[in-house]
Amino acid sequence: MKNDSTDRIAADLRTWIASAPPGAQLPSNRSLMAKYGASPVTVQKAVRSLAASGLVDSRPGAGTFVRTVRTSRPVDYGWQTAALGTLSSRFTSLSATQRTAAPDAIGLHSGYPAPELLPERLVRAALVRASRTSTALTRSPAAGLPELQGWFANELADATPAGVTPPTARDVTVLSGSQSGLSSIFRAVIGPGQPLLVESPTYWGAILAAAQAGVQLVPIPAGPKGPDPVDLARAFDQTGARAFYAQPTYANPTGTQWPVERALAVLATVRRHGAFLIEDDWAHDLAIDTEPHPVAAHDEDGHVLYLRSLTKSVSPALRIAAVIARGPVRDRILADRAAESMYVSGLLQAAALDVVTQPGWRTHLRGFRRQLRARRDLLTNALREHVPDAHIERPPLGGLHLWARLPDGTDVEQLARNCETRGVIIAPGNEWFPAEPSGPYIRLNYSGPDPDRFNEAARIIGETLKENH
Amino acid sequence: MKNDSTDRIAADLRTWIASAPPGAQLPSNRSLMAKYGASPVTVQKAVRSLAASGLVDSRPGAGTFVRTVRTSRPVDYGWQTAALGTLSSRFTSLSATQRTAAPDAIGLHSGYPAPELLPERLVRAALVRASRTSTALTRSPAAGLPELQGWFANELADATPAGVTPPTARDVTVLSGSQSGLSSIFRAVIGPGQPLLVESPTYWGAILAAAQAGVQLVPIPAGPKGPDPVDLARAFDQTGARAFYAQPTYANPTGTQWPVERALAVLATVRRHGAFLIEDDWAHDLAIDTEPHPVAAHDEDGHVLYLRSLTKSVSPALRIAAVIARGPVRDRILADRAAESMYVSGLLQAAALDVVTQPGWRTHLRGFRRQLRARRDLLTNALREHVPDAHIERPPLGGLHLWARLPDGTDVEQLARNCETRGVIIAPGNEWFPAEPSGPYIRLNYSGPDPDRFNEAARIIGETLKENH
Repeated sequence: MKNDSTDRIAADLRTWIASAPPGAQLPSNRSLMAKYGASPVTVQKAVRSLAASGLVDSRPGAGTFVRTVRTSRPVDYGWQTAALGTLSSRFTSLSATQRTAAPDAIGLHSGYPAPELLPERLVRAALVRASRTSTALTRSPAAGLPELQGWFANELADATPAGVTPPTARDVTVLSGSQSGLSSIFRAVIGPGQPLLVESPTYWGAILAAAQAGVQLVPIPAGPKGPDPVDLARAFDQTGARAFYAQPTYANPTGTQWPVERALAVLATVRRHGAFLIEDDWAHDLAIDTEPHPVAAHDEDGHVLYLRSLTKSVSPALRIAAVIARGPVRDRILADRAAESMYVSGLLQAAALDVVTQPGWRTHLRGFRRQLRARRDLLTNALREHVPDAHIERPPLGGLHLWARLPDGTDVEQLARNCETRGVIIAPGNEWFPAEPSGPYIRLNYSGPDPDRFNEAARIIGETLKENH
Repeated sequence: MKNDSTDRIAADLRTWIASAPPGAQLPSNRSLMAKYGASPVTVQKAVRSLAASGLVDSRPGAGTFVRTVRTSRPVDYGWQTAALGTLSSRFTSLSATQRTAAPDAIGLHSGYPAPELLPERLVRAALVRASRTSTALTRSPAAGLPELQGWFANELADATPAGVTPPTARDVTVLSGSQSGLSSIFRAVIGPGQPLLVESPTYWGAILAAAQAGVQLVPIPAGPKGPDPVDLARAFDQTGARAFYAQPTYANPTGTQWPVERALAVLATVRRHGAFLIEDDWAHDLAIDTEPHPVAAHDEDGHVLYLRSLTKSVSPALRIAAVIARGPVRDRILADRAAESMYVSGLLQAAALDVVTQPGWRTHLRGFRRQLRARRDLLTNALREHVPDAHIERPPLGGLHLWARLPDGTDVEQLARNCETRGVIIAPGNEWFPAEPSGPYIRLNYSGPDPDRFNEAARIIGETLKENH
């Protein structure tokens, strides 16, 4: 299966080309060979395939360049200014985590694990099998394939203590990624102009979805053991909010996990206020030092809207998640999903279900955990050595990222730009704050490519930080 | 490849089970054998697989029943009533077109072609190939895979007359189905409370997406040759609307295509009002009597937002569409898509691109056209014979549906319910009207399963119509 290095190089380059300016020069064949450990023939084949599809021009002796698009004449779109009006949201550009890094850069900014950490064999085999079933040619029901609904319900039911009514397949709505679930919940359950309590810092994608839905965020400090129930109760009382969004398990960006007693106290506070807890269990499969304990497993009466994603652990191309919601709120969410996109590809659902029900899945998760631990420790040590001024308050218990505080006064946006010119892409922490950042933070992904370059990356960050100061 | 009839039967039954009440009885093995032309062994295997996954219980001698879910105790979700407040949208249930028909019913309600009309071999082979590439394990750029962007841009550029600046790959945003594009355009370009002109009748999915976005619809009569530019200009003037949504090519539900001179007149009207034409080219591959002529090909300066979908012609499981938009409006749409769902599965994009670039694709489209023509004529003739009171004003030039007017005073909702009890599922026309229906219409899909049962279906509709009157 692994004779696709030409494909992989070509795909990486195409992704880079997508955001490169016309005329930009590609890395030399020599540097591509070094980067991918590939032969000259492999690299040449990859570059030729790009030329064949019209993406690049190779000029012998000079190099390979992103093709300049021919337009007949420039067009003035000024009239659109009046039709569109002013912007209502501060989000007009992509997040730093979505940047496509140059092929020879060290990318520590992304929110995804490198492909070599994913269950490649299981994913490819599942896709081949799914492509032979009827799911390849038919529409899926709006709420998802019943078997996959059942799998999500069973997983949570297995964590549900005796005496608590477990969820059923009907409570599950399958999503194409949890971002869609956040968008639907914020639109259909909270609504424009309404308040929503969130941890601070918290996942930038949730902040983005809230801005899109016009929801007013109310930050709650994300303490070392999760939010303080007293803070939470006060915010519910003061704002009249009817929901709290949080990542109780390996929060992005901090890697914190709420202890069980804290989780129960938060749930009791939410319940007392007749509110919802939107539990974003994004890192359920990304445990390192502990086990995940969904708060939703303790939910008696539909107070938790539980989001569970497979995107980061199965494959970013499978893009399958689910929301488990009980009571009328489930119908609200499902109606919004149906209006937004009708249904989720049944083929992707069948493939995802295939992966997570293979015996190899458990084995994969064990190996994934070992790899995440080794990489987390490697990057932590590299930072300690080369960036002594970076402070990691608590090592993350799971997830994909280190969350490091830099000395007060550091301009993290400037630092990120300067690091990028030296070939290291980092994510400035400001995006994770719903309001002003509480300090200068950066987020570093230890599950990306090139762990053998973590030392080099840390050295460059350390040197750049010194120059900036 | 075609030894999957067990899979198909099981999949159909699962889809049905998803919306069946617990305890409902499955059709007998004998009727499943007749319906699918399958052997007893095949049917038994399908039913056993459902029992194995816990969906049904087989009781020897009695039959097979949808499994009753065990709950520990009933839960009262009444508290959610206060948290959720009242509903803001009239859309709380699924469209009639999304209904899952019982396995032995004749379904004429859906908006999709039957799997046997799809390029099955191309789709399955493309999925297998895509599953071996890096797209199976990586994230796609937010705007889509560059090659697929290029394909969409090229298709429209090929239809663009000399002298008009053609679109480029950068103008293309790939979508997971055109419904997502409608939602994003209505949210990001129109906005809540703002007016949007639409043809009447028009696609129910657009009406639904507009309701979800809080957009105010302003109906324009969809004349026999498309909307009258005078009506359109008046509505622009009176409402201050900045956009007009339409399906100029084989409109859903009427099957009308705007003649080229009408298309140019509408575009000129839109341009004069500094507005956008949202051109939903849903049926580009569903031509029967004519060729598609996208209005967007005549767009000089970013007035047309062009939606092109592959869902109906490649596969409902591939779920790939694109919006081509030029100027700053493209950035608005892309930012909304990124906030809503980050990106579209690159694997589905790669597979869709593979299908439409195979030599077999053109052959498939020619065969598809022949089949659509034969089925359209078959159902039209069956209606003429058995439902003489149904009036089809103009035979559709393309698309998947007949749009038939019934005698004044017919209660089409009641008719649909009565037909369903006799095993024929039809779509009452009311869903296609943005305001009150202009008459009692029904929509019938001639591309669904079982053309050999069209006569039987028409007979039942005719008899039921007589009883209702």
